[in-house]
Amino acid sequence: MRLLVVNPNISDDVTELIRAEAMRSVAPTTELLVRTAARGVEYIETRFEALLAAEAVAEVIAEHRDVDGVVVAAFGDPGMPALKELVSVPVIGITEAALCAAALQGQRFSIIAISDRITAWYRECVEHFGFGNRLASIRSIKEALRGIGSVQEDFRAPLVELARRAVAEDGADVVILAGAPLAGLARDVMAEIPVPVVDGIGAGIRFAEAVVGLASGPHRAGSFAVPPPKRRGGLSPALESALDAAQTAGSTR
Amino acid sequence: MRLLVVNPNISDDVTELIRAEAMRSVAPTTELLVRTAARGVEYIETRFEALLAAEAVAEVIAEHRDVDGVVVAAFGDPGMPALKELVSVPVIGITEAALCAAALQGQRFSIIAISDRITAWYRECVEHFGFGNRLASIRSIKEALRGIGSVQEDFRAPLVELARRAVAEDGADVVILAGAPLAGLARDVMAEIPVPVVDGIGAGIRFAEAVVGLASGPHRAGSFAVPPPKRRGGLSPALESALDAAQTAGSTR
Amino acid sequence: MRLLVVNPNISDDVTELIRAEAMRSVAPTTELLVRTAARGVEYIETRFEALLAAEAVAEVIAEHRDVDGVVVAAFGDPGMPALKELVSVPVIGITEAALCAAALQGQRFSIIAISDRITAWYRECVEHFGFGNRLASIRSIKEALRGIGSVQEDFRAPLVELARRAVAEDGADVVILAGAPLAGLARDVMAEIPVPVVDGIGAGIRFAEAVVGLASGPHRAGSFAVPPPKRRGGLSPALESALDAAQTAGSTR
Amino acid sequence: MRLLVVNPNISDDVTELIRAEAMRSVAPTTELLVRTAARGVEYIETRFEALLAAEAVAEVIAEHRDVDGVVVAAFGDPGMPALKELVSVPVIGITEAALCAAALQGQRFSIIAISDRITAWYRECVEHFGFGNRLASIRSIKEALRGIGSVQEDFRAPLVELARRAVAEDGADVVILAGAPLAGLARDVMAEIPVPVVDGIGAGIRFAEAVVGLASGPHRAGSFAVPPPKRRGGLSPALESALDAAQTAGSTR
Amino acid sequence: MRLLVVNPNISDDVTELIRAEAMRSVAPTTELLVRTAARGVEYIETRFEALLAAEAVAEVIAEHRDVDGVVVAAFGDPGMPALKELVSVPVIGITEAALCAAALQGQRFSIIAISDRITAWYRECVEHFGFGNRLASIRSIKEALRGIGSVQEDFRAPLVELARRAVAEDGADVVILAGAPLAGLARDVMAEIPVPVVDGIGAGIRFAEAVVGLASGPHRAGSFAVPPPKRRGGLSPALESALDAAQTAGSTR
Amino acid sequence: MRLLVVNPNISDDVTELIRAEAMRSVAPTTELLVRTAARGVEYIETRFEALLAAEAVAEVIAEHRDVDGVVVAAFGDPGMPALKELVSVPVIGITEAALCAAALQGQRFSIIAISDRITAWYRECVEHFGFGNRLASIRSIKEALRGIGSVQEDFRAPLVELARRAVAEDGADVVILAGAPLAGLARDVMAEIPVPVVDGIGAGIRFAEAVVGLASGPHRAGSFAVPPPKRRGGLSPALESALDAAQTAGSTR
Repeated sequence: MRLLVVNPNISDDVTELIRAEAMRSVAPTTELLVRTAARGVEYIETRFEALLAAEAVAEVIAEHRDVDGVVVAAFGDPGMPALKELVSVPVIGITEAALCAAALQGQRFSIIAISDRITAWYRECVEHFGFGNRLASIRSIKEALRGIGSVQEDFRAPLVELARRAVAEDGADVVILAGAPLAGLARDVMAEIPVPVVDGIGAGIRFAEAVVGLASGPHRAGSFAVPPPKRRGGLSPALESALDAAQTAGSTR
Repeated sequence: MRLLVVNPNISDDVTELIRAEAMRSVAPTTELLVRTAARGVEYIETRFEALLAAEAVAEVIAEHRDVDGVVVAAFGDPGMPALKELVSVPVIGITEAALCAAALQGQRFSIIAISDRITAWYRECVEHFGFGNRLASIRSIKEALRGIGSVQEDFRAPLVELARRAVAEDGADVVILAGAPLAGLARDVMAEIPVPVVDGIGAGIRFAEAVVGLASGPHRAGSFAVPPPKRRGGLSPALESALDAAQTAGSTR
Repeated sequence: MRLLVVNPNISDDVTELIRAEAMRSVAPTTELLVRTAARGVEYIETRFEALLAAEAVAEVIAEHRDVDGVVVAAFGDPGMPALKELVSVPVIGITEAALCAAALQGQRFSIIAISDRITAWYRECVEHFGFGNRLASIRSIKEALRGIGSVQEDFRAPLVELARRAVAEDGADVVILAGAPLAGLARDVMAEIPVPVVDGIGAGIRFAEAVVGLASGPHRAGSFAVPPPKRRGGLSPALESALDAAQTAGSTR
Repeated sequence: MRLLVVNPNISDDVTELIRAEAMRSVAPTTELLVRTAARGVEYIETRFEALLAAEAVAEVIAEHRDVDGVVVAAFGDPGMPALKELVSVPVIGITEAALCAAALQGQRFSIIAISDRITAWYRECVEHFGFGNRLASIRSIKEALRGIGSVQEDFRAPLVELARRAVAEDGADVVILAGAPLAGLARDVMAEIPVPVVDGIGAGIRFAEAVVGLASGPHRAGSFAVPPPKRRGGLSPALESALDAAQTAGSTR
Repeated sequence: MRLLVVNPNISDDVTELIRAEAMRSVAPTTELLVRTAARGVEYIETRFEALLAAEAVAEVIAEHRDVDGVVVAAFGDPGMPALKELVSVPVIGITEAALCAAALQGQRFSIIAISDRITAWYRECVEHFGFGNRLASIRSIKEALRGIGSVQEDFRAPLVELARRAVAEDGADVVILAGAPLAGLARDVMAEIPVPVVDGIGAGIRFAEAVVGLASGPHRAGSFAVPPPKRRGGLSPALESALDAAQTAGSTR
Repeated sequence: MRLLVVNPNISDDVTELIRAEAMRSVAPTTELLVRTAARGVEYIETRFEALLAAEAVAEVIAEHRDVDGVVVAAFGDPGMPALKELVSVPVIGITEAALCAAALQGQRFSIIAISDRITAWYRECVEHFGFGNRLASIRSIKEALRGIGSVQEDFRAPLVELARRAVAEDGADVVILAGAPLAGLARDVMAEIPVPVVDGIGAGIRFAEAVVGLASGPHRAGSFAVPPPKRRGGLSPALESALDAAQTAGSTR
């Protein structure tokens, strides 16, 4: 199985954190392609920054179509669920994977986030997925970050404390450490948090493998089928080519 | 008052339909700038096509910052609510305006759409806005369109019939004729439909005027403030410039 | 355009606050009739007080049928949405208008209220409108009022503080200053509150103008059509006459 | 125990239907006072007609304060929950009682109604109560009624057929025969409908007895306490007197 | 009328508390059979403990089929609504009865519970019933209990304080004292809590009497009819016999 | 990795269908223990039959504690989520796994069921999980089954037709073939259904492997920790032993 893992942030150090946790999570028979968005921002915290990332992620997917599945590796799932229309293989966001991992292990969960600004966008993601009622809380670091690549070292203790308070005060059955910059931290702090701790990257990789393995078949109809052919303009060659291919395959995929 | 009206579709004939109805709707003291997205598709029917339009609309907004408000003139509100973070003036989608116009005139409403494929995306827009429970139905034309600029002539009778059935069978108190290609049709068919009929473009223009007139003040804090300054890459010069300007103004706007 | 603005409270000083803000908000071509309910209470804070106001507001509307639209100018929208059935022109409550104004400018909003008792009723209004999930909080003054006409002077600083805390602690993207006694205050305190501030009266006037301008047509069918003719008893002559007229016009309106 | 049963419709023949079923339902130790609203309409089908009834019902309650509980005997519960603020004894609507009776006997229920117009109002009542998700359907007679007092004779077979289809096609576990004009019909048709059949009047009487018997205590605080004393105007002497008494008792009730 | 009251906990001292309050609540013409589950745990606090109780309660019901109704007397309603399928008479849980009693007396209510662990399970019960939106809060004792039979003596003052804070801080219109170990306490503390106080056992008994009295008829179809005959194995003789009897009666009940 | 797969139905032929699809789905490094409930019914269709299965499944889990995860292999997830409290390894139901598999591949999904009676229970499962709003429909075979082990052969064509109609008429983006008796059918009919088709057993196995692989850690606190030690009675030796072990491990697990 070949999985494309896309970092929607333009930060290479976060890409390396993603790659490291993805390598630890992946099955021995899975091959990983880890790629970084070509444009956008260093770290997505808002709806508009997610908008900027969405087309850039689409282009990465369009450029790497010889894969069995795609993982969109920024919490908040920029471009989702729209990106599921682009190719006939599963495209999985790390947020939706983490939400499922939490929902399968408990009833209510909390999200621990690395900035206050990011929480409104995360809340909307959870509500759109359908789990607004299962969200115990979103707690976040309030201080400015020193750098996006060192968040988990700089804020290890406060992050654990936020998670512990989510359990004790908010009724969280499961805690999600949100955001690619925290990739891998769950393994490290698990013993200090008295409920299951979900890592977004780990969940994204493993649930993508599971869904690809299910081989449920493509969308030849319905609202996730490839968009119908029509006049387009101004798109990147990769996107044009991907849409052409998908629309040609349309009735036979 | 200067309003920027952006057609997120790349179709100039739809832009002309939008302009015509906008001109009929606007107050005498309002000046209109009507612009078409530079890239995307001829007519947005799916989540992915809306994703493609979103950044293109952002670029049009970034290029025309000397306005008092913006109307995003495609049903489904591509790029919303993210686009509200980009500039400090109100940015209003025609869907959210039409939903408010319907909610102020009745309890439950139906949406009449011009393609079956489009209905899933519209449903999600209504649910995200909070009115899932007030949506009586979405009914749509099932046949292929002859051309996007001539939908309202080609399908006048079927559209009226869909609206009448939404009232009689689905319990609609108000009917929304959805999509910029239907701009202006409400005026023409109103007498044949026994409940209020809302035109998206008309609602978008009038509610944008109302919100601009309220002068409620900008977002200097909260989740719709301009995104915090950070390293960016690969954006259009207009977007870079708009974000720089907004972030500089940040603490003072 | 002629708009009837009804104060459902029997307090003339609040009527003057309403009139003043309405005059500041209205388009030059709009004529205003501002009227006070003939019976009820000085200031509506509860469901039962709203019940007492409802028929009194209906009577004012019945007495002034030569208008293009009606604004019901007490937060909580007493008598709504029932009053929309009475006449064929738009009848808009200031709460529903303020909720739309907030929803078009942000995702989640808070309401700042002038008494603790009033908050339960407000919450139900928001939930019935469909925006329970977008309500960040309702915060209120806890102290007794010195007089209903001087609330905004007596409590200016505490009201601003409540609004600021709603933004900082509750995640409000927009703040609504609720209640006719606060009419006009938003203009004054806007600079001190870092998100858009919505004035109920301003929103009611401007959204009523917008909806009247849309000219969406009357309810000749559906659940907001005039009630069917039947034996009535004990109603005021104005209501009898209004219902007779509406029922006669029924099939032709 | 003394129960006041108020018919919010002005139709004496419906009052007699209510009285007859109430007499069959009541415990031997309960005394009934059955009263008819002094003004309003013959049969409430819409939100506005319910608005007209609300104050009339309040006046009947205010005139008969020497009781242990009140039943508001029109489906749709005109004036509720506001009326619960007026007196310190339980005030129960037949709709809310019927909804509880249905919810205690099954998961999802259907409502059988006597006019199409009435269904929108009923749906809102169910949603406001919190059971929107448990409502399988509302089915109604579509034909004009010959007279409100003879509905159950004139439409016995169609009503049974609607109930049977609600079970077979809509998944109803329980059926509610809605509206005082159908009072008593449930006893007669039960054998023909394969799920529990709830009579609104029967449920109203028995649940009022149960709640009165619980003796849970009055509302001395919270949003159902008597409204705070304030200047009033134009109310009936009975209402003035009831509010005065309640407000005087306020801190001691 | 004969009512079977089942204590799903195996604690006889709680059974005596239940019996005492049931005797105080019941009509003179109602005969009570109070029984204790034969297996399970001393006091149910979790979903799994409720699972253990469910079949034990079913067996008690199966052993006492010569009754007119059943009350399941543990808050959280173990085994419900499944148990309603087993016999053709009403089976009422004290939680669902208490929720209805609260909903008929106010809009939002709080639950006062005797352990922190129990609150998650209670919350899910309320949400499944449909009243998640009417739940103001669940507040609970945080300390370990000295013994399940003496909770109301040991914690009288803290329980009253929790109730008072639910009213003052959480907006509760009604307070439910949850759990059979608190049976009877409501009568004692009512004067100290300024809103109606609901006792689960009292509500269970009185609402069961009301529903039995309604005589709405059995489930001969729909999702609460007796399960269809099929091969079974390993069930208790009482359950086998009860299912055989119900399935034989099936088409004629 | 060792996975325990429990068939909550007592039918050995269904156990063989489960085993066969589980073997096809499992990773080469995963060892399977497939077991059948010792008591209950041949095929669970109702809430009460699920109640009967719940404790029997608990006993199977208690008897096989030397595993890394558990799959409860009946659609409707009898005993869930309570069973997650019993052991410290992940316990996954095939319904919740299938719902996640569907939600990761589309927005709205339909469930195809093998009996009409079963649909009410399934609907409640979906709503309790949080996906009520994503459920497009549940469609089911209406005819009596010839035998539970041969459903997929006997009804292959009608099942495909139900799935196709769910896509075309109900707007399903994904179809779930529900129930262990259909295990393996998805592979066979996928080409005839134009959207992804999810097999419950396949999803249960693969998502259990994914969650076990995540190694998120146990519940040492919160509402899924082992129930607190207390007097128990009448439980099977295996359950007593499992609870003793879990409670002893409590603070250290």
